[in-house]
Amino acid sequence: MQPLASYQQLIADYFESLAVIKEPRNLYEPIQYILSLGGKRMRPVLTLMATDVFDGDCKKALAAATAVEVFHNFSLVHDDIMDDAPLRRGNETVHEKWNINTGILSGDAMLILAYQHFEEYEPEVFRELAKLFSKTAIEVCEGQQYDVDFETRDDVTLDAYLKMIEYKTAVLVGAALKMGAIVAGTSAENANLIYDFGRNLGIAFQLQDDYLDAFGDPATFGKQVGGDIIENKKTYLYLKALEFASPSEREQLAHLFSIQPADNTDKIHSVKELFVSTGAAAATQEAIKNFTFKSFETLALMDIHEDKKAMLRAFGEKLMNRNV
Amino acid sequence: MQPLASYQQLIADYFESLAVIKEPRNLYEPIQYILSLGGKRMRPVLTLMATDVFDGDCKKALAAATAVEVFHNFSLVHDDIMDDAPLRRGNETVHEKWNINTGILSGDAMLILAYQHFEEYEPEVFRELAKLFSKTAIEVCEGQQYDVDFETRDDVTLDAYLKMIEYKTAVLVGAALKMGAIVAGTSAENANLIYDFGRNLGIAFQLQDDYLDAFGDPATFGKQVGGDIIENKKTYLYLKALEFASPSEREQLAHLFSIQPADNTDKIHSVKELFVSTGAAAATQEAIKNFTFKSFETLALMDIHEDKKAMLRAFGEKLMNRNV
Repeated sequence: MQPLASYQQLIADYFESLAVIKEPRNLYEPIQYILSLGGKRMRPVLTLMATDVFDGDCKKALAAATAVEVFHNFSLVHDDIMDDAPLRRGNETVHEKWNINTGILSGDAMLILAYQHFEEYEPEVFRELAKLFSKTAIEVCEGQQYDVDFETRDDVTLDAYLKMIEYKTAVLVGAALKMGAIVAGTSAENANLIYDFGRNLGIAFQLQDDYLDAFGDPATFGKQVGGDIIENKKTYLYLKALEFASPSEREQLAHLFSIQPADNTDKIHSVKELFVSTGAAAATQEAIKNFTFKSFETLALMDIHEDKKAMLRAFGEKLMNRNV
Repeated sequence: MQPLASYQQLIADYFESLAVIKEPRNLYEPIQYILSLGGKRMRPVLTLMATDVFDGDCKKALAAATAVEVFHNFSLVHDDIMDDAPLRRGNETVHEKWNINTGILSGDAMLILAYQHFEEYEPEVFRELAKLFSKTAIEVCEGQQYDVDFETRDDVTLDAYLKMIEYKTAVLVGAALKMGAIVAGTSAENANLIYDFGRNLGIAFQLQDDYLDAFGDPATFGKQVGGDIIENKKTYLYLKALEFASPSEREQLAHLFSIQPADNTDKIHSVKELFVSTGAAAATQEAIKNFTFKSFETLALMDIHEDKKAMLRAFGEKLMNRNV
């Protein structure tokens, strides 16, 4: 395995080689734009890393890695329309810079372009990659739909919430890794284990995102701390707080999640106090630990060298310490 | 080959067998809704027919035929959002019945579900079908983008217009047929010839649609006659009229295509007169004939029994006589 930065460089070079704007420009420029905003390219890095872990040539995984990243960006473009989000990675979203129709159509094209990257592979591998990709992509759509549905539902259970974040976020992490395993040609067992490693790590990561959204350090978190509270989002913290709350605490929480004050300082403060006093904060930290542990457990079952396992574990720890 | 109605029945039965609404309902109900509105299922019929033409088992083509129909309906859902269309096949469009976000997300899911239907096939066939599908789907997106671009452009050439309708409409007709050929396992030559048969027939059909939009019989055309003129659409008729017009006629046409009167009766009448007097109407009829002829020409080159060729030709003639 190579250092993260060298995987990122491989991906950057590959993207560079693909970056030709074709006609019609109004379709392809927005695609080039969103892909050029970058980000850490964590998902394609995972694909390359997985190929290395199973003794494949990680360069052969570049096309599959690109499919994953193009799909991820497709989902950002369409989600940003649905969320009416003005900014993405500090820049204008596609539908803001162009318009909603452009966002819809360029997004559609990206979803198709993602599939086309698999055409680099022989039929057997092509079919296996495309099949995993379709299954994952449908789950991501289902996760997005659950997320939308939850906004107006009062009966969201913890299990339903966990399924939502698994589908919306975690399955793509698992699939990115499994694609690398497929390209390397390892056993189905290894491929499924690394999928589970990624899926559980993805859930842990998303739960941590919920936690940090309330309790993170504004200097390092990257997003507005308290954003979920301001938006009355039913996160793991909120659902656990409801579960543990006394009748009077539940009433307080319900009230706080029904108001939208001009200045949110007091609201954020009171909600966070309830998250702590009910035990929801501690329970969320516990859940993060459990999913991280579950993720690392699958490493023990993998048929690979111990140093490879140690590296995957180190990557997981780095990710959960948010210094990737 | 079987009568059209029996192909349509096969498809209806297959769709029936697939029609299970899964969770989340808000994602899958709109999909079931748009697919249940029906239409003539012309594209999947073509897939089954092509498999029969090349001596395959048309039932084996049902999955590929379904992929084509699901993709076609995906494009309708997203196009209707972009066109702000209230009605589709006499019923509310998905984004009207639900909302724009539902239209976007359910459409996305349909595009992915379309790919999943190819999983019925063995790796070699799967790859060939998915590759043709992706190429076609991207061209449909490009065609849609050209169509959007042309609304605000004054320099649209006839060639650019023909390319737009080829991409937006005709390539999917060609691909539907070619997929049937691929499932039947015929030669690449035959598969490409039936693609060209469909592509040229598709262009002829779309040009005829332009013609009938102005000169069709309101009783049988199915859409509002004069709709393109009301919307100032730069169709083949309009572009040919501009090409042939005298300076004064050109001025008249430019004026008529700049106004949006409350009552369009006079405008439609004047534009149609110009379409006839400039020779644009005759030139469009000529182009329809030429593309139909081009389509039928490819039949001669196909390595199949003469009675199969006669049947494809009969289907083409029936389609162009609009009594399919």
